Amino acid sequence: MPDLCIPQASSFTLPRKKVFVMFWHQVNLKLPPHQRGFHLVTAAVCEALPEISQLTHGLLHVFIQHTSASLSINENADPDVAEDLEMAFNAIAPEDLPYIHTMEGPDDMPAHVKASMLGSNLSIPVRDGRLALGTWQGIYLCEHRNRATARSLVLTLLGETGA
Amino acid sequence: MPDLCIPQASSFTLPRKKVFVMFWHQVNLKLPPHQRGFHLVTAAVCEALPEISQLTHGLLHVFIQHTSASLSINENADPDVAEDLEMAFNAIAPEDLPYIHTMEGPDDMPAHVKASMLGSNLSIPVRDGRLALGTWQGIYLCEHRNRATARSLVLTLLGETGA
Amino acid sequence: MPDLCIPQASSFTLPRKKVFVMFWHQVNLKLPPHQRGFHLVTAAVCEALPEISQLTHGLLHVFIQHTSASLSINENADPDVAEDLEMAFNAIAPEDLPYIHTMEGPDDMPAHVKASMLGSNLSIPVRDGRLALGTWQGIYLCEHRNRATARSLVLTLLGETGA
Repeated sequence: MPDLCIPQASSFTLPRKKVFVMFWHQVNLKLPPHQRGFHLVTAAVCEALPEISQLTHGLLHVFIQHTSASLSINENADPDVAEDLEMAFNAIAPEDLPYIHTMEGPDDMPAHVKASMLGSNLSIPVRDGRLALGTWQGIYLCEHRNRATARSLVLTLLGETGA
Repeated sequence: MPDLCIPQASSFTLPRKKVFVMFWHQVNLKLPPHQRGFHLVTAAVCEALPEISQLTHGLLHVFIQHTSASLSINENADPDVAEDLEMAFNAIAPEDLPYIHTMEGPDDMPAHVKASMLGSNLSIPVRDGRLALGTWQGIYLCEHRNRATARSLVLTLLGETGA
Repeated sequence: MPDLCIPQASSFTLPRKKVFVMFWHQVNLKLPPHQRGFHLVTAAVCEALPEISQLTHGLLHVFIQHTSASLSINENADPDVAEDLEMAFNAIAPEDLPYIHTMEGPDDMPAHVKASMLGSNLSIPVRDGRLALGTWQGIYLCEHRNRATARSLVLTLLGETGA
């Protein structure tokens, strides 16, 4: 049998629960220019959203409004990982492919390729007032340009606060 | 100290705010067949969701119900970028790897690889009745098959309308 | 004209609709150790969330709390696809790049690269009590380590139940 989502018995009913209050919050976060490479920004993101501490559960959505930088979740401890990620993605999306769009330099088009490969948006569960990240997970700003400017993020928090 | 999400002082309390009305909407969007490559579909997505204009803030979720096409956010201005993205992802996921699953032709399995690499789902913040995309960002349908059929998207809009 | 999201006529107003009840649910799902490769887990995810059957529409968010395994959506039928995906991502993120972070073995750093490339989070629309996946789509656990341990997922379900 293929691996499918089989609906459960229709006799299932939602448990009664206490009343929750739905919460939405949206803020901009401007990150200062970072040099080309992978940079942990978990603390910066959380400091911009003290409201996280008030949610019993929910989701944090992080969006970067640029096409030559991206967001990722990866190891938060060993700085060598950040360096190796930069090296590996340079090898995977090299500057010497026969690109047409080269006016802004050899790092321009590879930056767009990496942005699509890594992605512009992340979402992370929130539970008991904290991001439900794994022990070793952190949020990375992936800067793909040699001469980067500040980068604008839009942070959207949605969830429930206790009754 | 590692880069962690430290909960803020527990004295923080949520600000009182005016009453918001939670809003959900979900529609199908059938995109006609596109030739292999990267195609901007931002306007098509927004035209299918006039409800965006009524949200003070929220999220748009876009999902493609196929495994040989994908979704991405990238540069919306220079058509050379779309052409270069197609060239680069063909170089990164080439047709001449020793694939087993080849019944549907040499473009079949690389299409699945690109679909996993680029992703089937996107989410974009909504603010003040518009998608909060950056100036140069657009939504791409990434068509990975040589002879493509129409592609089905599921658009889910959630957010708050003014009190 | 560039491909933009043009706001619709401001005369558009949201249709009146019946009262909906907002629903949130969050659970942990522990997946037992899987061997290195791509493994379908759609049924396991759905079995952990019988609440899906009660939602008229919504979103399922799936998050993996690890940095050397990832999540993806791809073909759910032919087991050759899973084998080819493993082969292809090994070719794209090879073990013989000049990595610094190699203490845990040659599969360690390529696992981090694949985790960023494939992603730690997925979201899938829910409609009429089912995941709105395409006919051929399934959820994959992508295990990138040679000696894997159990993997922790956080499943977040949000949506509306009928009035």
